[in-house]
Amino acid sequence: MLDQRRLPGEEIYLTLTTPEAVADAIRDMAIRGAPAIGVAAAMGLALGFARPDGREDPLVRFERLARLLAATRPTAVNLFWAIDRMRTRFNRERREPGRDLTAALIEEALAIERDDVQANRAMGRHGAALLADDCRVLTHCNAGALATAGYGTALGVVRAATEQGKRVAVYADETRPFLQGARLTAWELQKDGIPVTLLTDGMAGHLFQKKAIDVCIVGADRIAGNGDVANKIGTYQVAVLAQAHGVPFYVAAPISTVDLSLPDGTAIPIEERDPGEVTHLAGTAIAPAGVRAINPAFDVTPARLVGAIITERGIARAPYDRSLPALCRAAVPAR
Amino acid sequence: MLDQRRLPGEEIYLTLTTPEAVADAIRDMAIRGAPAIGVAAAMGLALGFARPDGREDPLVRFERLARLLAATRPTAVNLFWAIDRMRTRFNRERREPGRDLTAALIEEALAIERDDVQANRAMGRHGAALLADDCRVLTHCNAGALATAGYGTALGVVRAATEQGKRVAVYADETRPFLQGARLTAWELQKDGIPVTLLTDGMAGHLFQKKAIDVCIVGADRIAGNGDVANKIGTYQVAVLAQAHGVPFYVAAPISTVDLSLPDGTAIPIEERDPGEVTHLAGTAIAPAGVRAINPAFDVTPARLVGAIITERGIARAPYDRSLPALCRAAVPAR
Repeated sequence: MLDQRRLPGEEIYLTLTTPEAVADAIRDMAIRGAPAIGVAAAMGLALGFARPDGREDPLVRFERLARLLAATRPTAVNLFWAIDRMRTRFNRERREPGRDLTAALIEEALAIERDDVQANRAMGRHGAALLADDCRVLTHCNAGALATAGYGTALGVVRAATEQGKRVAVYADETRPFLQGARLTAWELQKDGIPVTLLTDGMAGHLFQKKAIDVCIVGADRIAGNGDVANKIGTYQVAVLAQAHGVPFYVAAPISTVDLSLPDGTAIPIEERDPGEVTHLAGTAIAPAGVRAINPAFDVTPARLVGAIITERGIARAPYDRSLPALCRAAVPAR
Repeated sequence: MLDQRRLPGEEIYLTLTTPEAVADAIRDMAIRGAPAIGVAAAMGLALGFARPDGREDPLVRFERLARLLAATRPTAVNLFWAIDRMRTRFNRERREPGRDLTAALIEEALAIERDDVQANRAMGRHGAALLADDCRVLTHCNAGALATAGYGTALGVVRAATEQGKRVAVYADETRPFLQGARLTAWELQKDGIPVTLLTDGMAGHLFQKKAIDVCIVGADRIAGNGDVANKIGTYQVAVLAQAHGVPFYVAAPISTVDLSLPDGTAIPIEERDPGEVTHLAGTAIAPAGVRAINPAFDVTPARLVGAIITERGIARAPYDRSLPALCRAAVPAR
C-alpha cells in the first residue's frame, strides 16, 4: 500500500507481509479513510489466514485475526463492516466440505475492494447531479481516491461532475493535525488536473463570508440511523458555517458507512489520538514542551445540518431515520 | 526585541540598529500584534531620527521614516496611530526653538510603550468583570503580552481575572498558518502558570458542541466605527460558532485600535500574505509543489456577532456606532 504519511513529498509503497503489519499501518495512519481501512482490514484478514499455521483451529484463527484488525481504530464503521463481510463469507464456506478457505477469503477481500470502486463511481453519478455547471466546492480532510479503493467518495462526486464537463473548483481545508487536505486532497486533485486551492482550517469562514463557496461535500466515517455523521475533526464547524451562510452541506459515503444499530451520533465512539500530533508537526515541536493539547480525531455533525447523504444506491434526504433504512434495505443494483 | 518567529523553541533577542531593520522585523513578523507593532514603529521612527544625517531637513527625514514604517503592514491601525502620535509630538516640538527633536521622539516612543501597558491593565480590570469565577475561555491567535508592550489585551483580561482569584482556563486555537496560538499564547500562559490547552483550529466547533467553552475573547487589529472587527484570520468563524452555540464573544483592544474614519469593516484593508506560509511549515513543504493556496492574514467579524468591546476606557456595547465614538471622545482618566 501507498504510505500516505509520506505524501506528498514521497511516494513510498509498503509491502506488508503479516496481519500485524497491516494492523499497525491502519493504526498509524499509513492508510486512512473509512472505506480504505475497511479494504485494508479485509486484505489483512486474508493475508493472516493464508499464512500457514497447522495447529490453530480455522475458526479460532479467523476470530483472532478479526480481533487484531478490529482493535486498530474505533470510529470508522467500514472497518467492522468489512470484517463482518469476511466473517459471513468465511462461515458460509467452512460449512461446505473441502472448500479452500484461504482462497475464499482472498476472493472476498478483492471483491470488497472492487465493490468499493464501483460504489464510488455510482456515488459520483448520483452526486454530480447536485452540482451546478460552474461550482466551487469546499471539502474537508481527504475523501478521495486515497481514502477508498479508488475514485473517492466526496472527491468521486467532484470527479464525476468534472467528467460530465462541469467546471468544478475545489477549496481544500488543510485539515490539521494530520493535514490530509494539504497533503492528500491537494495531491490527488492536482494529479487529475482538477483545480484545487488550499486554505488553512481557519480560513473557511472567511470564504463563506465572501460568497466564494457554492457547496460543501465531505466523506464520513460513520453515519447513525438518524443521519448524524461522524467525520474528521473540523467537519462539524464547516457544517455550522455552511448553514449560517445558506450553503448546502452534503455527505458522500457508501452504504457500508451507515450504522443503523446506532439511533443517533451520541453513541458513535470518537477516537482520541496522541496530543503529540497537535503539538508536533512532521516530528518538529510547534508548541512549548509539556503544554496540554486535545486531539479528538472525529466530530459528529447533527443530521439537521446535512442537506443530503449521497450513497451508491441514491441520495438520502431528511428525515434520514426513514430514508437511510430504506436505502440500506434496497436491493443492490445489478452490475 | 524578542524574535517571535523563533518561539517557543528559542528565545532570541534581536538588536536592531536601523529603521530599515525595524521595518523588516514588522513585515516579516519577528514582532507582531497590533499594539506591539505600533510601539515598534514608534521606536523605529525615533531610532531612525536619532541617526546622524546632517544634510536632510528634519521634516523630510521624519516623513521619510514614517513612510518606511507605515508601508510594512496594512491592516492593524495601531501602526498608523503610533506614527500619527509621533508626528503630532514632532510637529509640536519643531515649532519651539531649540528643542532636541531626537530626545522628544525617543521620549514619545517610550511613552507609547508605557501607555500601552497601562491600557492593557485597565482593559484587564474592565474585562475581568465579564468572566465568571470558574470560566473556560477560547482565544484565537495571540493577543497577549507578546502582542503588546506587556500584559496583553485578550490575555490581559485573563491575567486580571486570574489575579482576582478567578479560576480561568484558556483554550488556545493553534492559529494556522503562523501558529501564534501554539507558539506564543501557549508559551506565555504556560510561563504564567495559567492553565492552557491547545487545539487545532478545526476543533473549536467540537468544543462548543460539547459545551466546553464559556466565553470567547480575542484581540483586534482594527475596529471600524460601527463595531466591525478585523482580527487574525479564523476569528470570524469563531464568532459565528460562538453565536450558534449561545456563547458570548468579546473583543479586547485599546482605543488606538478603533478607526472612526471607517464607517464599517468593508473598508478595512486585509493583508494578503505569501501563500508559501500555508504550503510550508517551518521551511518544510506540507503540500504538493505548485499547488495554489490563499493566505488572507485577517478577516472581519461583523459587529452583530460582537457581544462587547473591552477598552481601557470601559466596555462598549451595541450599538457600537454610538458607544465607540463616545469612548473615543471620553477624557483619558488621570493616571
